Amino acid sequence: MSEYRGKAVILLSGGLDSATLMAIAREDGYQCYAISFDYGQRHGCELDAAAIVAQRNAAEEHKVIHLNLDDIGGSALTDQSLDVPTTPGEGIPITYVPARNTVFLSIALGWAEVVDADRIYIGVNAVDYSGYPDCRPEYIDAFQQLATLATKRGVQGQPISIEAPLQQLSKGEIVTLGTRLKVDYSLTISCYNPAPGGEACRVCDACRLREQGFIDAGIDDPTRYQQSD
Amino acid sequence: MSEYRGKAVILLSGGLDSATLMAIAREDGYQCYAISFDYGQRHGCELDAAAIVAQRNAAEEHKVIHLNLDDIGGSALTDQSLDVPTTPGEGIPITYVPARNTVFLSIALGWAEVVDADRIYIGVNAVDYSGYPDCRPEYIDAFQQLATLATKRGVQGQPISIEAPLQQLSKGEIVTLGTRLKVDYSLTISCYNPAPGGEACRVCDACRLREQGFIDAGIDDPTRYQQSD
Repeated sequence: MSEYRGKAVILLSGGLDSATLMAIAREDGYQCYAISFDYGQRHGCELDAAAIVAQRNAAEEHKVIHLNLDDIGGSALTDQSLDVPTTPGEGIPITYVPARNTVFLSIALGWAEVVDADRIYIGVNAVDYSGYPDCRPEYIDAFQQLATLATKRGVQGQPISIEAPLQQLSKGEIVTLGTRLKVDYSLTISCYNPAPGGEACRVCDACRLREQGFIDAGIDDPTRYQQSD
Repeated sequence: MSEYRGKAVILLSGGLDSATLMAIAREDGYQCYAISFDYGQRHGCELDAAAIVAQRNAAEEHKVIHLNLDDIGGSALTDQSLDVPTTPGEGIPITYVPARNTVFLSIALGWAEVVDADRIYIGVNAVDYSGYPDCRPEYIDAFQQLATLATKRGVQGQPISIEAPLQQLSKGEIVTLGTRLKVDYSLTISCYNPAPGGEACRVCDACRLREQGFIDAGIDDPTRYQQSD
């Protein structure tokens, strides 16, 4: 008999949230199939972080999907001609990548069908969500409906479940939970605009949320930051 | 004032259905942004057909998205080690690519946001749908829900509309409609397993549906077929 409850596909970016997510999936008893995306993001070094996080968490497989979302444009995360903001703004920020979570979940859904996974874990977060529409609970519910109708498993009455366990947690709560699950946060990268060596900028939205998370959790942040003059 | 009602993203495979779809979008008064996918399909020559169809239909832009869905596997359309069936089977066929329409619609949705399109046209067909779960009307409705929740436009009360005008048409009715709209079907390729020169096999599901469509419409089929011995 397998030591696992089943298989799960984990959306793994290499950041703080998804490393915590993978620890949760393991704690839940699932064999992990990690999937990452090379979509022309300027913070490509997060893919190296993802590979290390997958390996340390005994992922059965880690798949990197290549996808030229930068050809579509429309986001500071994929368009080198747009600057990543260093101060918080109003509304949906320019770092929003159009339909990114929908694209990632769709591909994860395809892989979940192929490996016969019961679950997909996604690290969206409705509390510190930076204003992205595709991080809201009602969005995840809508994707669950779609996943049930779109797939062979759904048709056969065994839909793949979309799990978003970080949805209602603050960044501080995520750090606290991950620390309890022994996540090594020194392996992770959150910055939208890191230096070539992977050092975080400290000023983008993602860096600010991460820094505050460690402060709120009362835990030392192992992030390597760029030297500021 | 623009001569167009608005912009539309068209999922263009290079086959009979999507060529008809593009003619409908033009007839509806939309400026067309065509999108095709190079996803490791064995019938890659359909991409050449898509480029020609886009050009002949005065597409404002034709984007080809590269995506290694063959790494995920699970379908005879992307896995060269699986044979394309030459006789009809029961249930969901092996040519089903897991979550393909969801992936394609998701990426189209991202591009629609960037170009500020009002509509996405997809050529799914519930009548001659070959048993794929992601061609059913309830699937398209679920994606519409998702699109409304997932996007900046949706949040702002102007959701992008998912149009599936071929949904309730038989293949014969599609050919009749397309012929009225002056679609040049000699440019299109439907075969799942064509010869290197693009000649259709005549025996796969897609070929059989196409051939029957022309017979039902009472129109000569301009498809080039492989020589059978």
